[in-house]
Amino acid sequence: MNARPALDQLGLSTGKRARLHRILYEHGLCNGTALFLPYDQGLEHGPRDFFANPAASDPKYILSLAAEGGFNGIALQIGLAEKFYWDYAGEVPLVLKLNGKTDIPSAIDPLSPVNATVEDAVRLGADAVGYTLYVGTPAQERDFAQYRQVRADALRFGMPLIVWSYPRGSAIDAKGGMDSFYAVDYAARTASELGADVVKVNFPHPEKQSGAAGQYLHEFPTQVAIDAVVRSANRTLLLVSGGERAGDEAMLDKARQSMEAGATGLIFGRNVWQREYGESLRFITQLRDILAKHPAR
Amino acid sequence: MNARPALDQLGLSTGKRARLHRILYEHGLCNGTALFLPYDQGLEHGPRDFFANPAASDPKYILSLAAEGGFNGIALQIGLAEKFYWDYAGEVPLVLKLNGKTDIPSAIDPLSPVNATVEDAVRLGADAVGYTLYVGTPAQERDFAQYRQVRADALRFGMPLIVWSYPRGSAIDAKGGMDSFYAVDYAARTASELGADVVKVNFPHPEKQSGAAGQYLHEFPTQVAIDAVVRSANRTLLLVSGGERAGDEAMLDKARQSMEAGATGLIFGRNVWQREYGESLRFITQLRDILAKHPAR
Amino acid sequence: MNARPALDQLGLSTGKRARLHRILYEHGLCNGTALFLPYDQGLEHGPRDFFANPAASDPKYILSLAAEGGFNGIALQIGLAEKFYWDYAGEVPLVLKLNGKTDIPSAIDPLSPVNATVEDAVRLGADAVGYTLYVGTPAQERDFAQYRQVRADALRFGMPLIVWSYPRGSAIDAKGGMDSFYAVDYAARTASELGADVVKVNFPHPEKQSGAAGQYLHEFPTQVAIDAVVRSANRTLLLVSGGERAGDEAMLDKARQSMEAGATGLIFGRNVWQREYGESLRFITQLRDILAKHPAR
Amino acid sequence: MNARPALDQLGLSTGKRARLHRILYEHGLCNGTALFLPYDQGLEHGPRDFFANPAASDPKYILSLAAEGGFNGIALQIGLAEKFYWDYAGEVPLVLKLNGKTDIPSAIDPLSPVNATVEDAVRLGADAVGYTLYVGTPAQERDFAQYRQVRADALRFGMPLIVWSYPRGSAIDAKGGMDSFYAVDYAARTASELGADVVKVNFPHPEKQSGAAGQYLHEFPTQVAIDAVVRSANRTLLLVSGGERAGDEAMLDKARQSMEAGATGLIFGRNVWQREYGESLRFITQLRDILAKHPAR
Amino acid sequence: MNARPALDQLGLSTGKRARLHRILYEHGLCNGTALFLPYDQGLEHGPRDFFANPAASDPKYILSLAAEGGFNGIALQIGLAEKFYWDYAGEVPLVLKLNGKTDIPSAIDPLSPVNATVEDAVRLGADAVGYTLYVGTPAQERDFAQYRQVRADALRFGMPLIVWSYPRGSAIDAKGGMDSFYAVDYAARTASELGADVVKVNFPHPEKQSGAAGQYLHEFPTQVAIDAVVRSANRTLLLVSGGERAGDEAMLDKARQSMEAGATGLIFGRNVWQREYGESLRFITQLRDILAKHPAR
Repeated sequence: MNARPALDQLGLSTGKRARLHRILYEHGLCNGTALFLPYDQGLEHGPRDFFANPAASDPKYILSLAAEGGFNGIALQIGLAEKFYWDYAGEVPLVLKLNGKTDIPSAIDPLSPVNATVEDAVRLGADAVGYTLYVGTPAQERDFAQYRQVRADALRFGMPLIVWSYPRGSAIDAKGGMDSFYAVDYAARTASELGADVVKVNFPHPEKQSGAAGQYLHEFPTQVAIDAVVRSANRTLLLVSGGERAGDEAMLDKARQSMEAGATGLIFGRNVWQREYGESLRFITQLRDILAKHPAR
Repeated sequence: MNARPALDQLGLSTGKRARLHRILYEHGLCNGTALFLPYDQGLEHGPRDFFANPAASDPKYILSLAAEGGFNGIALQIGLAEKFYWDYAGEVPLVLKLNGKTDIPSAIDPLSPVNATVEDAVRLGADAVGYTLYVGTPAQERDFAQYRQVRADALRFGMPLIVWSYPRGSAIDAKGGMDSFYAVDYAARTASELGADVVKVNFPHPEKQSGAAGQYLHEFPTQVAIDAVVRSANRTLLLVSGGERAGDEAMLDKARQSMEAGATGLIFGRNVWQREYGESLRFITQLRDILAKHPAR
Repeated sequence: MNARPALDQLGLSTGKRARLHRILYEHGLCNGTALFLPYDQGLEHGPRDFFANPAASDPKYILSLAAEGGFNGIALQIGLAEKFYWDYAGEVPLVLKLNGKTDIPSAIDPLSPVNATVEDAVRLGADAVGYTLYVGTPAQERDFAQYRQVRADALRFGMPLIVWSYPRGSAIDAKGGMDSFYAVDYAARTASELGADVVKVNFPHPEKQSGAAGQYLHEFPTQVAIDAVVRSANRTLLLVSGGERAGDEAMLDKARQSMEAGATGLIFGRNVWQREYGESLRFITQLRDILAKHPAR
Repeated sequence: MNARPALDQLGLSTGKRARLHRILYEHGLCNGTALFLPYDQGLEHGPRDFFANPAASDPKYILSLAAEGGFNGIALQIGLAEKFYWDYAGEVPLVLKLNGKTDIPSAIDPLSPVNATVEDAVRLGADAVGYTLYVGTPAQERDFAQYRQVRADALRFGMPLIVWSYPRGSAIDAKGGMDSFYAVDYAARTASELGADVVKVNFPHPEKQSGAAGQYLHEFPTQVAIDAVVRSANRTLLLVSGGERAGDEAMLDKARQSMEAGATGLIFGRNVWQREYGESLRFITQLRDILAKHPAR
Repeated sequence: MNARPALDQLGLSTGKRARLHRILYEHGLCNGTALFLPYDQGLEHGPRDFFANPAASDPKYILSLAAEGGFNGIALQIGLAEKFYWDYAGEVPLVLKLNGKTDIPSAIDPLSPVNATVEDAVRLGADAVGYTLYVGTPAQERDFAQYRQVRADALRFGMPLIVWSYPRGSAIDAKGGMDSFYAVDYAARTASELGADVVKVNFPHPEKQSGAAGQYLHEFPTQVAIDAVVRSANRTLLLVSGGERAGDEAMLDKARQSMEAGATGLIFGRNVWQREYGESLRFITQLRDILAKHPAR
């Protein structure tokens, strides 16, 4: 287990520190942990993600869930943020997601194009911005170029930058896959090296080894793997992503191991809202119980 | 049937709201519905579209039709707007279409290049701008980049942004085609996520399923499909496009189902002007009768 | 026969109207018609075009011919304009051609790169700028991007914009070729839609039909074809290009039919200067006689 | 042996000279030589480089080593510089590395994308910036474009520019490889021609000749080769890179020959920190002993 | 024989004329002719070019030769200009070469990327800038784009622009090759059309005809060919390039024929410095004797 980095150790500017403080200590459990609700699947996958619970198609429903569930933040694309966040402005922090794409065209050379700016985030009263970096993509050059502008603007406006650090592309597929220990570990480090304030990663699967670097070709318990990933992120606050809907117990285990490893929190979407409202709230309570055991020291 | 979103629910800036109010409540039926006349086929298809009614080749003829027919707006490319709109300035609202292309080169990687700016629209006294987004195109990255600038400029100038949200490209062809329920539904949601104020879509064909996402592989009545599409657009006002000339009864059915589903209006071009002037006016009257049954509450 | 558009019908800014008035009413026949001398073949084809009349290699010779022949304008690339126009400044209007290319590399994806700006044209005292748009090129996206900047600058400086609207590329070759009625008609309309003030087209060949849109698969007399092309240009003044050297009678026929159709004038280069000086002047006189029969009303 | 260039011979601006003076004469041995610690492997290779000595994964550990070992500078990417350098600010000079990439996607057309600016370096109190130039890459055009901006900004801010001048790409592979005498010699010259203040090169291997230019197809002793490379860098200060971990004696030999040839110093990373802390310090002492024999005259 | 253009005929701005006057009438023979020393081979070919005379690897040696030999200018890349020109500032005019590339990667689509600006030239006290234009390259579009910026900046700063007008690429190889009469003639004209003040060309080889345009498929004496090339450059001052080291008599013949044809001067590098210092000076004297016979009238 690693010590979770404290806000005063991170070399943050005043603005970034103020906003992260608001997210971590004035919302949710107010104890330095965080639970985020991502809601960009309508763009990333299309309306098909809402067939399991049609009510979830309505952004107002989701915002209500985020507020009632006591989330530390909700991640939205610009369109929904403009049309729906004004109703809940200030009640739940907004993370404006700055890039995204549909999953219609093939993505052998994946890149998530920017569609909004840090200035949009400032205008809408957001407390952070999100950027998807496809670590390992052959489009690395254009990805870094986009990212560089976002990082510079976030610095200029004192806006915390959360990097969705996602291994993707054919080389990743050939080196263990997008949630292999090798790939997730590299992704965590990359976000740290490139100046993310917070990094969102998938939970690592140390058993996925085929093609990975030699150092990863051993049997690692998952706790060892997530410990290493948190270490690779060093002073970058780490969030573990939920991904596709899976069994509740498996999700809660991931959550426990992540917090144990020194993660700052969780960012769970489909596992939360692809079920009926009351059920969603009950699951959220279980997640909050885990976070409550890991207050900042 | 969905409730049609009201202007005060949309998080609009003052300028956008003022202009949309002018379009929806001070022109046409003045009841919150809208009938638009698109006239960019001379660029998109070439003069061949005018052989059915040569008089329609003259933009002055079309403007006269738009004014006499009581349209809520006419969509023109920059060249025709500069040369012809001054004659009718203020009589019928102008939607300046900001991008477009010829259909001469193959479009396996379709993108509609921008040829005018929101500032041009302001200068010409337009009340909205139009942008064609090819949802699903492999050129998504460049498309989003263009679009982002347009969206930002529209925000800056308080100019409503109408997105022609058109599924296109080889991946779409392989997933049900450009007017499948899957594709149209995704297109409506994409426009909403990316910040369109108004979205123009094709009428969905739920029977086109080959290759579409699993959730769409069921028998859906067309009314169910158009209802879902309007819901996917959530707080984005939705217009249904006419497309190629087809039988009048089929077109009127589309119009009725769309308005029933909560669409804000229709945007019909070739179905209107690829016939003699008097006939055009009679068909317009039929469309207006439908709109009159769906006033804003 | 179409009525030729008058300057006060075109929605022109003051600067554009002043300059077009200078070209059309203060030079040449001063009757609203125009005869232009294009001299960019040294870049487009290389010195080989001057072997037929080596004296024509000297830009000073050509400027002298333009002045003595009473042309309404001469089109030059930036280099020759800077080095030679000062000798004749004001005597014959300058059209600064803003883009061009050599014909050395293959041009399956043709684009004419910009090499000068509208600001250069202002600095040199030009009365118009020229831009080659390759209608139908697979490079449409980059072409429109370049063109858009030129159009915007021309607007800003009140500089008339003459579009060399040239169908080119493999798709055009497959649809009747670059001087088919289909292609020329589409090119005229495209220039009009995109905001050209003046459009230069090739004379249409209605017998070239192979692969063209169905509407063009009929026997059209050439007079009908050129009438249609002028109509497609609507309020864009139209110039007919001479192209490669051909027989004088054929050229004069083209000229007569074009003026009859409502063209504003002619732009003939190699047919003028690929012969001895005196002969050139005699041919010019024949062209002027035709123009004289079509004064503005 | 070549004379090492003195600071007053280099045509430097005041700011560059002041900062280079600080690095060369106020840190390390303060005798005009330099020992740098590069620490960008977490981005370039991923966390796998830290498995040999897990403590080295922590940037704080490395900064402590740099300070205690008396290095003339440490090279970091923006993220680590922002999060960790404030703890050691001023104790050891910072070289902000401005570009970098992961080694996940294939690099047949290698380019190292910029992710930070010279202005970031100024803000963080750095004394130099680093840029990786892939000499021989097919991406030369984009590489030079990036580099040009960095060079111009470094000039503007008086910030010394250290070029990692690395031969890479298929053409290099076919001409002797990335550490052939031919390739390293060309790389040193390229950095000098393009305006580097300091150049970092690999130690040349004159026995790697297959495919190299004819002039290099002879038996050259390594001392002759490194002498030539230093000469090719002329007034650009030269640093020899350590590369992958190798035997200590081999490394010390490289160091001796380099300093003998007129190099200004060494930049050794993995050979330093891929071992236990005390061992690292002992190896550093051996390197310092070599530098001490080559003070500036 | 053509008359060499005089400075007051060229439409030059005051700044360009002042600097060209300094080069042509205040250095070298001060008679309107010019002898330039190009020294960018270290970048273009690498250190291998210096093996024939290792002393020539040192830029200081070359600058000394330029000064002692009475050259009208020396062409350097930015790095060497910054590091070495300050020693000779004002003694021999500086031509800052703004683009260049290594010859390591294949160049089927050749482009010479810009690495310095006209502003750099102003800052360093240069009297001209140099730009390599690869006439006929498939990269024509990007080449013209780069060139356009250079031309505009040169105009803004009153800096003479010397174009290295070099036919290159597969199409050129198929049309007679890079020093065919066809290619060199076209290159001279292209530079003139695009606004070069001075053009550097290779000496034409009229016997290389395979694939060239029909007009060039005749037996032309070399004097006729170089006469034509100078004529194609019209009011652009022309310099003949030396190219690879060849026999002295052949070089002197080229020089005589070029000056006879109306060239302004010569630009010889490897033929000058790929020999011992004294020999270089003797060869320079022979070149100066030729120039002395062609003073400006």
